[in-house]
Amino acid sequence: MSSPYQNLLAKVNEIHDLEKASGLLMWDREVIMPKAGNTIRVQQITTLRRLIHQMSTSDEMGEQIEAAAAELADAPYDSDEASLIRYLRDQFAEARKLPPEFVIRVSTISGQANPVWVQARAENDFASFRPWLEQIVALGQEMAELYGYEDEKYDPLLDKFEKGMKTAEVRAIFNAQKEATRPLLQAIQERGKLVDDAILHQPYDIDQQKAFAHFIAPKVGYDFSRGFLGTAVHPFASSFSRYDARITTRWYPNFINPSLFGTLHESGHAIYEQGTHPALARTPLARGTSSGIHESQSRMMENVVGRSWGFWQAYFPVLQEHFPAQLGHVDAHDFYRAVNKVQPSFIRVEADELTYNMHIILRFELEQALINGDLAVADLPAAWNDKMRELLGVVPPDDRQGVLQDIHWSRPGFGYFPTYALGNLYAAQLYEAAVAQQPAIAEEMAQGQVTSLLAWLGEHIHQHGRKFTPAELVQRATGRALSHEAFVRYVTNKFSSIYEL
Amino acid sequence: MSSPYQNLLAKVNEIHDLEKASGLLMWDREVIMPKAGNTIRVQQITTLRRLIHQMSTSDEMGEQIEAAAAELADAPYDSDEASLIRYLRDQFAEARKLPPEFVIRVSTISGQANPVWVQARAENDFASFRPWLEQIVALGQEMAELYGYEDEKYDPLLDKFEKGMKTAEVRAIFNAQKEATRPLLQAIQERGKLVDDAILHQPYDIDQQKAFAHFIAPKVGYDFSRGFLGTAVHPFASSFSRYDARITTRWYPNFINPSLFGTLHESGHAIYEQGTHPALARTPLARGTSSGIHESQSRMMENVVGRSWGFWQAYFPVLQEHFPAQLGHVDAHDFYRAVNKVQPSFIRVEADELTYNMHIILRFELEQALINGDLAVADLPAAWNDKMRELLGVVPPDDRQGVLQDIHWSRPGFGYFPTYALGNLYAAQLYEAAVAQQPAIAEEMAQGQVTSLLAWLGEHIHQHGRKFTPAELVQRATGRALSHEAFVRYVTNKFSSIYEL
Repeated sequence: MSSPYQNLLAKVNEIHDLEKASGLLMWDREVIMPKAGNTIRVQQITTLRRLIHQMSTSDEMGEQIEAAAAELADAPYDSDEASLIRYLRDQFAEARKLPPEFVIRVSTISGQANPVWVQARAENDFASFRPWLEQIVALGQEMAELYGYEDEKYDPLLDKFEKGMKTAEVRAIFNAQKEATRPLLQAIQERGKLVDDAILHQPYDIDQQKAFAHFIAPKVGYDFSRGFLGTAVHPFASSFSRYDARITTRWYPNFINPSLFGTLHESGHAIYEQGTHPALARTPLARGTSSGIHESQSRMMENVVGRSWGFWQAYFPVLQEHFPAQLGHVDAHDFYRAVNKVQPSFIRVEADELTYNMHIILRFELEQALINGDLAVADLPAAWNDKMRELLGVVPPDDRQGVLQDIHWSRPGFGYFPTYALGNLYAAQLYEAAVAQQPAIAEEMAQGQVTSLLAWLGEHIHQHGRKFTPAELVQRATGRALSHEAFVRYVTNKFSSIYEL
Repeated sequence: MSSPYQNLLAKVNEIHDLEKASGLLMWDREVIMPKAGNTIRVQQITTLRRLIHQMSTSDEMGEQIEAAAAELADAPYDSDEASLIRYLRDQFAEARKLPPEFVIRVSTISGQANPVWVQARAENDFASFRPWLEQIVALGQEMAELYGYEDEKYDPLLDKFEKGMKTAEVRAIFNAQKEATRPLLQAIQERGKLVDDAILHQPYDIDQQKAFAHFIAPKVGYDFSRGFLGTAVHPFASSFSRYDARITTRWYPNFINPSLFGTLHESGHAIYEQGTHPALARTPLARGTSSGIHESQSRMMENVVGRSWGFWQAYFPVLQEHFPAQLGHVDAHDFYRAVNKVQPSFIRVEADELTYNMHIILRFELEQALINGDLAVADLPAAWNDKMRELLGVVPPDDRQGVLQDIHWSRPGFGYFPTYALGNLYAAQLYEAAVAQQPAIAEEMAQGQVTSLLAWLGEHIHQHGRKFTPAELVQRATGRALSHEAFVRYVTNKFSSIYEL
């Protein structure tokens, strides 16, 4: 006789296997599949998604969860069992709030809006995308109502990506960071020692870029024996188990950054998945707990480690070996400064560490205004440009480099953007706590080594998967709630030194 | 209101999507997945297989099939609808004959036996594999009993791979071919002009092999815009729709044949899938009708086209450009003769066109003896060697090059081997009929072109997918039942000329 928990686990394993099969259909679509296969592939994914939704939201599943909860009422809060039941209960309740009709409508409208956005961006034609965006905003509003909220309408959208976090909390942190880093940016612009990053824009042979990517990813802890590096237009990480967590990168023939920092970024994501505890395998706990915490791990490897002086002091000679003509004559420290150049710009994904969060704060504020009905889609381009001027002091010359740049609004993905900036803040706070608890981490980092850092992250973050909410995890790991302070200290120290302020 | 047939089709589409998801999990395992991912991947595949089995064999499915059959009782035999119902009825009845307990037992024992076989082959140790093979033979016997049979116990096993074909029929054809080609082999060995194939065994740069594979596959009709060429230790073709039919190849650094003819072989398989009619999409009819007919398409491209003089007259200059040091000085006709060298050998997958079927006939006869209980596993190695002497005049020096060489007996895959030889016979008969109906085919082939051949195959074979049984398809396409005669004419003409008999 199996216990209620064992029965539940068997069902959860089965659903998880289907999730991963669906994930592989999607990974393959981006990395391997010929374009012609797309129509039928979408149907295959839809079938799996429908089946998963059916199984996860069935009355039987609800009963199984409650039976297991009753059986394990005394299980400690941080046990795998109690954590799984907590997670399943929450997800079950959330999923049941969306009627199947609504889910299909979201999927249909998003599917139609996406190609319109692609073309609108290519043709710099916001007007053609506008009616679709209006529908998508309406869907976002409807979704917020369906999920329900106590304080702000944006709360349930944010909650989908950052469980338990409130809009007001994010707003307070973002505002504090905005004010605290403004003088630093001003100082850099007014009296910083100039940084020249022309060396990054040279012809870089793609095979050599690939070879270096394979060399450098393991240096931040990515385990290729449990991974794979593929090519994708929009890079991402994707895992099918802790034993198979993959990364993708894009290769630009005349610019080294995308492959270099893209590889480190996706490695950070994948290391998180590779580090989930084996006991969580084949359950939904076997992945990163939230978009923000996930992003903290990618930004940790891309920036805190991958744009540090210790790292390039150690590995720039190897990079030079791959590109003797381009970098043979370059001083390691000049390279380090080049990859840390601060400059307000139009495009989020190209932004430096200091100005990146401003791009996010802009989107966070505009999304709330849209969802609350305070901003009409028709007025969005002008609002975008106003905020760019306010936050970054630059205004894009056209909508392609402004309001049309991101894919996120071609589906009702509201609530996701803030997690990018939260990732940067989490990363700084986690790193500061790690060094405080384990001073060897800083010493190793000065040599480009991450062994102790990885051990700390593994213990405090990775192994737990989704057992805890982001707030719980950060509290446990750093002894305090998330704030902007560590990030401000981090960028102040780093850029004061680079810009000799 | 949807009709019973529409309801059935919706369910069939769903099951088919799961089949293809399962197929992708397997494709990915061979081509991309890190080895470490295997344990969990196997569980993911098992979950999908179990779900597919459940859905395909449910009482509800049986009722849906019968309701649709009643609705479409008047549909013409060769309509898509009637063909699908025929196919589903048969598959449903067959699948219900195997109790779930038996399916699990087969899967478990096969899973355990496979690594034992791998090691036994590596260590040339039949004794260690023998107890497993005994279990597998017993499973094969049990399977035959579960499916049931009228004439021979081997019939239901063969039927799984070659629907409707009887053991007695295959035996008669094989025996006739064996007798008919024996004098040709003898003549080649006694008085054929010597063929030297040393040029094939040279260092061949793997990147150049890959480049040539990408060049040559479209020349036999493979559509890369609906495909992908990957690398696999044991090459295979796999399709996820007619818009995404993939091939794999292996690359030997010192031997050009495996990648060259492997690519053409798998292209033949994939072209079949790419050619299934769009109206069959997302149904089980959207694939080749049987293992034997599938093999006829691969052998058509590998041998009938890919080892023809017209083909190499056309493309050898391009191959020379890829390998000037290896082939620059070689005469095209000498290359053509080299790739057609006839020589009895130990290993099936390395056999030439004339002796290949002897390897199959050997296995076909031994499989029947095992299944009928006329041959004990303990006596199998000696029986193998005796038959090698009888059929090919050579005896392998050890079991590694003998009875242990193939993977097929590490699971109860009895009945599959004969379809390899049937494929060669079908190919010859189809080609002969195609040329008789459309003489332009032969003229084009003399120039290395396959446009008209592909059109003929598309019309008579590919588009039909699984609508007809192999026997029906061959009868419709060639006007007669399968026989050995076209094959005998084909090899006699070809090798008499090559060996100047």
